[in-house]
Parts: sequence; structure tokens; C-alpha cells
Amino acid sequence: MTDTAPRPTLEAVAARAGVSRATVSRVVNGGDGVRDILVERVRKAVEELGYVPNQAARSLVTRRHDAIAVVVAEPETRVFADPFFALQLRGISKELTAHDNQLVLLLTEGRDDHARVGRYLAGGHVDGALVFSLHLDDPLPELIQRAGVPTVFGGRPGWSGDRRDVVYVDSDNRGGARDAVRHLAGLGRTRIAHITGALDQTSAVDRLDGYRDVMADADPRLIAEADFTPAGGERAMRELLGRCPDVDAVFAANDLTASGALRVLREAGRRVPDDVAVVGFDDMLPLAEQTDPPLTTVRQDIEEMGRLMARLLLRGLDRGTPREGAGDTRSGVVLPTTLVRRASA
Amino acid sequence: MTDTAPRPTLEAVAARAGVSRATVSRVVNGGDGVRDILVERVRKAVEELGYVPNQAARSLVTRRHDAIAVVVAEPETRVFADPFFALQLRGISKELTAHDNQLVLLLTEGRDDHARVGRYLAGGHVDGALVFSLHLDDPLPELIQRAGVPTVFGGRPGWSGDRRDVVYVDSDNRGGARDAVRHLAGLGRTRIAHITGALDQTSAVDRLDGYRDVMADADPRLIAEADFTPAGGERAMRELLGRCPDVDAVFAANDLTASGALRVLREAGRRVPDDVAVVGFDDMLPLAEQTDPPLTTVRQDIEEMGRLMARLLLRGLDRGTPREGAGDTRSGVVLPTTLVRRASA
Repeated sequence: MTDTAPRPTLEAVAARAGVSRATVSRVVNGGDGVRDILVERVRKAVEELGYVPNQAARSLVTRRHDAIAVVVAEPETRVFADPFFALQLRGISKELTAHDNQLVLLLTEGRDDHARVGRYLAGGHVDGALVFSLHLDDPLPELIQRAGVPTVFGGRPGWSGDRRDVVYVDSDNRGGARDAVRHLAGLGRTRIAHITGALDQTSAVDRLDGYRDVMADADPRLIAEADFTPAGGERAMRELLGRCPDVDAVFAANDLTASGALRVLREAGRRVPDDVAVVGFDDMLPLAEQTDPPLTTVRQDIEEMGRLMARLLLRGLDRGTPREGAGDTRSGVVLPTTLVRRASA
Repeated sequence: MTDTAPRPTLEAVAARAGVSRATVSRVVNGGDGVRDILVERVRKAVEELGYVPNQAARSLVTRRHDAIAVVVAEPETRVFADPFFALQLRGISKELTAHDNQLVLLLTEGRDDHARVGRYLAGGHVDGALVFSLHLDDPLPELIQRAGVPTVFGGRPGWSGDRRDVVYVDSDNRGGARDAVRHLAGLGRTRIAHITGALDQTSAVDRLDGYRDVMADADPRLIAEADFTPAGGERAMRELLGRCPDVDAVFAANDLTASGALRVLREAGRRVPDDVAVVGFDDMLPLAEQTDPPLTTVRQDIEEMGRLMARLLLRGLDRGTPREGAGDTRSGVVLPTTLVRRASA
């Protein structure tokens, strides 16, 4: 519990990974323009050394409870309906169990209950918190900061830059989206649509940005807003078919959305991929293999994200990294994505 | 927090429900032979009066955390894969939220982690615990008793009778099973099989007992053991077709199991219900409506069970019912079941 070993530095990570300090900084801060192979090497070095970016883990409470709260900023109905959360929790659960820490999942009916979550976190019942699925206008980050518990976020937080000590784990949403859209363009598609996720979440914004990186001059009617759910994907696909009947490809913000879009395309008599090619995001199994046709998608390692969140938090706690002087930059570990080709595109 | 209002008595419940004291006692203790309409009336009176059977809620801790732990005695993978738990948690979550209590779900990788759950419960982080899916040889009840937190169990605990203060909420598993098997017999079926649940759980044992109540002289080869999962249902159905090819009906211990059995029957070219009639248990939606053919099943109100567990616990806490002198009988509220007819039987 005391700080005996020196805390690994950015320089140590750079040396271990065999890359420059600037490259480590770029990877750790989620920036673009680093090759996948280097990202992977940096990530390994971060893990092996137990590097915690930016003094993020906060001062130790005097007593450890060996319990970590997990807060999913969604109603419990959503938590149980979307397999994304189950996968992330699986990674977290494995890692916490391996360190004999209790996973304490704080469920709510909705955002109105987040103040109560803040009270529980402030009550000294857990050593730290893992928080994911934050929405832009959610009061949770403020409440968590007031509660004073060390926290690692899942996904890049979207609030503006006046908060300190923000550590997060994310996937390369923007790069993955670019890969998806480039793949569709490479198939000769020219009317490539995008069905967005919930745009009050950075993952959805980043995927939209990745789409725009490639489709800078795209017809704006090719973008339809949805919310990461199958029903949202259905609605958006109907809209798209209505206003752009010549659409020949769709990049959907996640696999659940893509599954809804596929249903609507089938009902409308459009063949996939012949008439309309479809790419999803997540590589959620078994869903992505069981859609008709099986889904080409951007794979992110959701379970690993959960595991890494837990690992960063526990290491920060073990080290008792002080909170003071942490500066106000946020820092994250960004995991690479991979395009997985199946029949839909 | 103090005990100002007199605690409602069994007599008060009997008066309110317009039934005899013996009837209330039978309902509350899960006994048989009470008509559904009376069970329902007693249940209403229990709720309206806030009757807590048998001094079960324990002594108040000095400080309330407004937080209730929920422990599902299954690995987290199972908790997220089986919709039964999501439904029960939904009922619990709604009730706790309505009382501004935080739902604290303690997830584990498996039974080896239950000692840690016991430590968390003993650590003074929650006011009480709701525990379900207990297995016969699980150390949890012992750990919970040592932790000293007021607890309500989901499902009749199966351990032998030396423990005090056991309050539980259950469905009428045995009565529901009898209804299912009688329905199959009423269709003229004579070779009625049973695919059991996990027999280290009382719900599975009670449903098997209900089957035996009706099929006292049944060929023992008509009973195949499974574990409440679709894969278990598939295996058991294959066994049954192998050793009793003349089977003409199946009562499956839950809908998930029934869905597995239906798949195997279809593969084997048996028509449902013409060749083999199938009845499930739970009325899990949308599953029970989406099987091929849609499933005749025994409905239990899983969400209501969760809600009632939470309500009993919170009322016990508000009342601060003393633990002393509680005697050693267990007491439960047993909810009625209903047969729901669809196409499979």
C-alpha cells in the first residue's frame, strides 16, 4: 500500500516500447497518426510497466475495502439488453476477481438516480470506480469528482477541459470508422450512408468524424441519426431509403444498429451486399455471425477494454499515486480496432 | 427508524383478507391446498399491511446506508445470459429506486468468490441483502448469517432447518408443475416426460415433485436431468428420444430448457404438438412467444417476485423488527402461477 517502487515514467514506457517519447504521448493521449503496430507495442509496455498516465489515480483512502464500484450510465434495462455492457463487465469482473476485489455494480433506473450513486461513492464503500457509457450532459463526472474516489472511465469523456485527473480507456473509434468507410469505397460504392450512434456520446461522435474524414463531400442526407439500438437502426434505415433511394452502402455505428438496418433492407427487397453493402462496429458475437448475411464489422476488444480499465485503477490504488499536481490534461489508453470481413460488405 | 407503529400480526392479515388464520399461515408458509383466489387475497393483505412473516427482518444497524446488496449465486456470465435474472433485478431495481435506495449488485466469477461477498456484506456497506439462485451446497447462507445483515431470499432455501429468521419469496413451483402435467394428461398424452432443472436448487426439486404428484407411476426413464439452460434442454431431449422413443409429451423445468428441447424435436422430425406436446415454465417473454411453435408454459411473475423481495426487506428495515426470539421456522410468501396456453401443447 505504500509507495515503495518508483512510478514508471513516460520515458520508461518509450524505452520499453522502442519508440519516441512523442509517440507514447500520442498513443496515450488518444491522438491519431500512429501505426497500429506501434500502438500495440506502446500498449504492451504500458501494461507491463504498470504505467498510469498523468498521476490519475488519486490519494489512497486510509482503509482499503477491496471493492470497486462499476457505474454504467444507462438504465438497468439497457444494461441487460445490450451485450456490450455484459462484455465490458466480463473483462472487469475477471480482472477484479483475479485481484480478490469485489465488483460492486451500481444499477439505476435512469439519470435521475445518479445523485444517489454519487452519495454511495462518497460514502466510503469502495476504493475506486469504473464508469462507462457517459452522456454529455450527465451530472456523474461532477458527482464523482466531489465524491473524491479514484476513477477510470470507459470511453473518452466528452466534457470540456476543466477537470483534472481524467484517465480513460477507449477504442480507436475514429480510425475504425475510417477503415469501415474506406472498405466500402474500395468496393466501388459511391452513395455510402452512415447511421450514427447516440451523438451525446463521444464514441458516436468519433465514428461520425471518421466517416466524414473519408466522405468529406458526402451528401448530408446520407447521415441518419440513431442511438445504438436495433430499433434505432430500423428507423434510420427507413429514413435513408426514403430520402436517398440510390444508397448503395451503409456504415452503421454499431452491430445492433446494423442488425436493424439489415432487417429493413430485407423487407424493402434490397439484396445485401449486392444492392447495399453494410458494415457494423463492435464485432459483437454471436450477433455479427448470425445476422443475414453475416456482418462485416469493425472489431473492438470490449472485454479487454474492461480488463484494462480495472487494471489501471487497481495499479493506481496500489501505488497511491498522489492527486496533487496532476495538471489538467486528460490521458487515455486507446486500443486499436480491426476490420473483420464477412458477407455483408 | 424507530418502532412506533405496532407490527401487523397474522391475525390482522387474516381479518383483512377475510380468511382464517390457518389459511394465512398456509399461504405464508408456502403450503398447499389453498385456492388461487384466496392466495391472491392473502398476498394483497400481506402487502397492504406490510406484514413481515415471523420476525424475520433483523436488528437495525445504527446507521442506514440506503443501499441494498443483491447477490445472485451464479457466475456473472450466467447472470447476463439468463433473462430470469434481468427480470428479477428489474423488479428489485424499481422497488429500491422508488424508496431511494441504491441497488448494489455484487457480481462474482463463481462460488469460490462467495467468501469475498460475505466480507463485503459484513463490512457495513449495505443495510440488507437480497439473495437468489442459491444452490444446496453453497456457503453463502452461512456467510450471510455471520455477516449479520437482514436478508430476504428469492426462492425457498434448501438447507436443513437449523437456521433462524429465514424470509423468502417464491413461486408455487410444485403447484405450477402439477398444472402443467395435468394439462398434458388432459390432452390424452400418456408418455409424459420431465426435463428437470438444476436439482441442487429447490425450484427444480419442487417442479419435479409436482410432476411426480401427477405421474406417481411414471416410467423413471421419462425423467431426464438438465440445468435450466437451452443446451441442457437439448442434451436431455436427445437422451429422452433415445431411451423412450414413444414419448408423446414433455414438461420442461423452464422455458430456456423447453426451447432447447423444441430444437431437438424439430431436428428429429417430431411435430409439436401433434407428435410431442411441450410445456415450459416461467413464461419468459419474448422467448415463449417466439419459439417454434409458441410455447405453452406456466407463468410466474418474476419481476413481481423481485419487487416483493425488496419490499419485504425495506419494510423490515423500517420497522427494525428485532432478531431475538424469532424462533427457527422459516417463512415465505409464495406467489401463485398460471398456465398460459399457446401452440406447443
